[in-house]
Amino acid sequence: MSKEFHRLISLEEALAAVLAHRPRPSAATVPLTEALGRVLAVPAISQIEVPGFDRAAMDGYAVRALDTVEAREDRPIRVRLVGAVGMGQSPDVEVAAGCAAEISTGGMMPKGADAVVMVEYAHELGDCVLVSRPAFSGENTISAGSDIGLFEPVLRAHTVLGPREIGVLAALGIEQVPVLNLDVAVASSGNELLSPGSPLKPARVYDINSYTVAASLRELGAAPRHLGIIPDQKDLFVKELRQAADNSDMVIVSGSTSAGRGDVLYEAIAELGQLLFHGINLKPGKPTVFGLIGETPVLGLPGYPTSALTVFRLLAAPAVMAALGQSKSSTVLRGRLGRPLRSESRRQMLAVALSRGTVHPVDKGSGSITTLARADGFLDIPPSREYLAEGEEVEVHMLAAAQEPDLVLAGESCPALDRAADSMPGLRLLSEGSRQGLKLVRQGVADVASVTSALPGLDTSGLVPLLAYQRDLGLIFRDRPEGRFVGWPKGSAMADLQEGVFRRLALTGSRQGTARSHGAAAAWVASGRADLAFGSRAAAGGLQFRAETGDRIELLSRSDRLGRACDLIAFLRSLRLPGVAVEPQMPE
Amino acid sequence: MSKEFHRLISLEEALAAVLAHRPRPSAATVPLTEALGRVLAVPAISQIEVPGFDRAAMDGYAVRALDTVEAREDRPIRVRLVGAVGMGQSPDVEVAAGCAAEISTGGMMPKGADAVVMVEYAHELGDCVLVSRPAFSGENTISAGSDIGLFEPVLRAHTVLGPREIGVLAALGIEQVPVLNLDVAVASSGNELLSPGSPLKPARVYDINSYTVAASLRELGAAPRHLGIIPDQKDLFVKELRQAADNSDMVIVSGSTSAGRGDVLYEAIAELGQLLFHGINLKPGKPTVFGLIGETPVLGLPGYPTSALTVFRLLAAPAVMAALGQSKSSTVLRGRLGRPLRSESRRQMLAVALSRGTVHPVDKGSGSITTLARADGFLDIPPSREYLAEGEEVEVHMLAAAQEPDLVLAGESCPALDRAADSMPGLRLLSEGSRQGLKLVRQGVADVASVTSALPGLDTSGLVPLLAYQRDLGLIFRDRPEGRFVGWPKGSAMADLQEGVFRRLALTGSRQGTARSHGAAAAWVASGRADLAFGSRAAAGGLQFRAETGDRIELLSRSDRLGRACDLIAFLRSLRLPGVAVEPQMPE
Repeated sequence: MSKEFHRLISLEEALAAVLAHRPRPSAATVPLTEALGRVLAVPAISQIEVPGFDRAAMDGYAVRALDTVEAREDRPIRVRLVGAVGMGQSPDVEVAAGCAAEISTGGMMPKGADAVVMVEYAHELGDCVLVSRPAFSGENTISAGSDIGLFEPVLRAHTVLGPREIGVLAALGIEQVPVLNLDVAVASSGNELLSPGSPLKPARVYDINSYTVAASLRELGAAPRHLGIIPDQKDLFVKELRQAADNSDMVIVSGSTSAGRGDVLYEAIAELGQLLFHGINLKPGKPTVFGLIGETPVLGLPGYPTSALTVFRLLAAPAVMAALGQSKSSTVLRGRLGRPLRSESRRQMLAVALSRGTVHPVDKGSGSITTLARADGFLDIPPSREYLAEGEEVEVHMLAAAQEPDLVLAGESCPALDRAADSMPGLRLLSEGSRQGLKLVRQGVADVASVTSALPGLDTSGLVPLLAYQRDLGLIFRDRPEGRFVGWPKGSAMADLQEGVFRRLALTGSRQGTARSHGAAAAWVASGRADLAFGSRAAAGGLQFRAETGDRIELLSRSDRLGRACDLIAFLRSLRLPGVAVEPQMPE
Repeated sequence: MSKEFHRLISLEEALAAVLAHRPRPSAATVPLTEALGRVLAVPAISQIEVPGFDRAAMDGYAVRALDTVEAREDRPIRVRLVGAVGMGQSPDVEVAAGCAAEISTGGMMPKGADAVVMVEYAHELGDCVLVSRPAFSGENTISAGSDIGLFEPVLRAHTVLGPREIGVLAALGIEQVPVLNLDVAVASSGNELLSPGSPLKPARVYDINSYTVAASLRELGAAPRHLGIIPDQKDLFVKELRQAADNSDMVIVSGSTSAGRGDVLYEAIAELGQLLFHGINLKPGKPTVFGLIGETPVLGLPGYPTSALTVFRLLAAPAVMAALGQSKSSTVLRGRLGRPLRSESRRQMLAVALSRGTVHPVDKGSGSITTLARADGFLDIPPSREYLAEGEEVEVHMLAAAQEPDLVLAGESCPALDRAADSMPGLRLLSEGSRQGLKLVRQGVADVASVTSALPGLDTSGLVPLLAYQRDLGLIFRDRPEGRFVGWPKGSAMADLQEGVFRRLALTGSRQGTARSHGAAAAWVASGRADLAFGSRAAAGGLQFRAETGDRIELLSRSDRLGRACDLIAFLRSLRLPGVAVEPQMPE
């Protein structure tokens, strides 16, 4: 069962191969209302003049400028009002010498007139208009074609269509927009995979990669065709792969990194077309496969979700962007390492989160969904770098658009803080326990730490106390405080408190699982998966609660982040939750 | 016909009113493949454990750790191979003491086993496996629920769904995604408007705003309903507005700023519901209207496209974002003014382009499409600031995502440069004439200027010459070099050269219009709209060309931008175009 890679190539070689065989987009036409984010296939060359006629640029009176030469405020000249120009209509009046016609902004200039006198300098008097200021020829008018000339190229081919560009196309009268269509078939492969929406079965996991890859393709302006899961059996796999290659401009398959699996794709490409490489000297990304079936490039990504997205960014995104005539496929942001890093002697792409300019690894294991959820991007660590120091400046290749929250709060989980996060869109909560909260605040990743008094000896020196509250902790149950229970993660403050209470009360039910938040603890009971939980009164909701102990939650901030915390403090002061008592103003 | 605004309110008052009556989104369900960019309606709380079972984290052999305690490289222990665990299947083997089962990464741990020995430390020998290293309990396994616990909240309500979040939902098995749906009806109003796609008629212009507003709403995560143009007649307008208000969470109508028009909306709101304000003390935005029909907020934007988008950003975007539980509705970037500005005593939102950190106004007139196309954002200039100095740092409220090009080339237009821009995705061309090109390079807006030798006395001091080429200029025609002609904009180098040639040849046809590029000049002739044009041989394509003169185009760069220009220079050196002769290497 050992895995064979014929020759591991470098990332540079791999990228060169994928770019050399990048897909060829076809042209398609979409209605203007669906063109947002698409890529223009051909230059937009104006087939009209904009405006298409001489227009009034102001509300007023269309006149012959020559007639108004003598007009003065104290000696207005008098012209005869011969009619009005209706909006959107060819004028049915003509302005002869000594005449004027009422006109609105955007109205078509009537024959004979060459200027518009603004309302402010005109006064209607019976069938006449008194003009109190001379107008020059062309004043307050916009001449035909002055904005966009006939046959003028207005948007280049390969322009990404945003709201402004869509407006420009509308102005040119273009309702059917020629866009580049890059049809990319996306599939996942693996016998253990199930489609989301179907009931979970033993030993199976939900397919993730076909969804993340399709969404990433859409973000880049390509048109993903979501094939979902294709089966691992060779003959079925070959059949589906051939169909996908025939019907698409590119095929992206992600499979598990395990040996048997990778080989199915590798063998299928070799059988149907030409294998160009199999194996990159890169972590993650070793089992990456690339080849051609007919003219269609086929890329195989590793199976772990963060690995799949990382290799997608490294290889697929540049090829897709080049195919669509775009120059940049990724954003690189700079940040400083929040802790030192050890790397391997292989080139490594390390998943990291980026917060407040501080970079911290999120690699809980590359198969982890938590890693996927937290990874803002990755570091590209060369084989020569085995140690990176804390504070070192690094480049983060972003997987997602950077969304800088207004305030990052890290530490002890609490329903009161959950409420704040639900109400304050700019607040990001990292409920990772008191110790980790303090660490993240010191690293600058978070602005505020929430710390429980139940963990003695925590070092809060140098941090500014913002607010503190007492909360009731106790048993959450449906009928009686006993039976099967849900616990907290080992080593957490809540786990210690729960253990003490359970020992004191001699509670001996069996442990059903682990909750990482008060809400989850209560949900175990509410759902019947457990009879008993330990947590905050505020989380008990409609369940019964018996207070057994309590703790004090203190919020602490770095002094340079105080300003950010004001809204949170105000919110918590006004919050009324059962079993939560905010202490009076903190001492200065 | 004078316009009446009962009371002009401040922008702050207007925003407060719109936010106080922000629309209420409803919940909808979309398939996961269509969830990109949508806003989650409720928290995603895991109803499963991830992983759902104890999994192998490596390829190898599932064993009882206790059995391997004595294993050493030089003294491997021997366990009996009892079978293999199929991927995606509940193991049909059990690992008793002294036994092992083959397993792949991600496979379900068989009963009895508590660790995986990696392939590297195991050696199959008949029906036995030799293990050469001890395993600890839990080694190379991932325990059920260790990634995501049961009932754990994984994504907050109001999360914007990017590829990562979509992957997290997939991992939880969620295929039907509850999203907030903010249904916003979008219409334009005006008798002069035509829908793009219909043939242009005299005195009419194409509707732009319903498209730009709908696209902007989609960018914000709302669901625009594009109603297109609603007629200006009061009774029809009232009927359509009522329908729109009944069927949507919000209505946005843009009308022309002209008096009659604004009043239709204003009166219709007053008739159907409650008018909350009409008129903001702001340029542009004075004719903005807001009110309620039933519970549905109705916002009326000014008619000029850049004005409509600007007021959309100021008022509609914050309301939409608040309704969707998002904190930030706009991006603000900083830059330095490229030239001094005079403002009015009214608060003004000035459309500007932002390039290389330099801000320059693009206000060719607020009705202009060119303005719309170039406006990256706007400055908010308070009434007290009548003068802003060149170099002053200002904040740009972005209308569009900032797309920083690799190289900005400004100056004389030339088919050779157009070719470069077609081939080099990162190159932005500003074909605004030699004088303006030099100015933009000096201001730092552009990196390279293209300058014609036909304009004597241009100051190129301090700029570094990069490359120069000669080009043939002359008459472009179909049959004979005479007849109706197309000209160049007054004052441009090409206009002067054309005038000289035409005078010398005594060409006396009538001028049909203006071309602003060599390609457009040729297109006038190719289309039959003119018989004769003046331009570069390289633009003549299939038309006839007779050389009459020539000029020398020189590319010049600021010394601090030289590096950016290398690709362009290389491209132009390798380009072969008729009538274009690149000069040998520039002297150092």
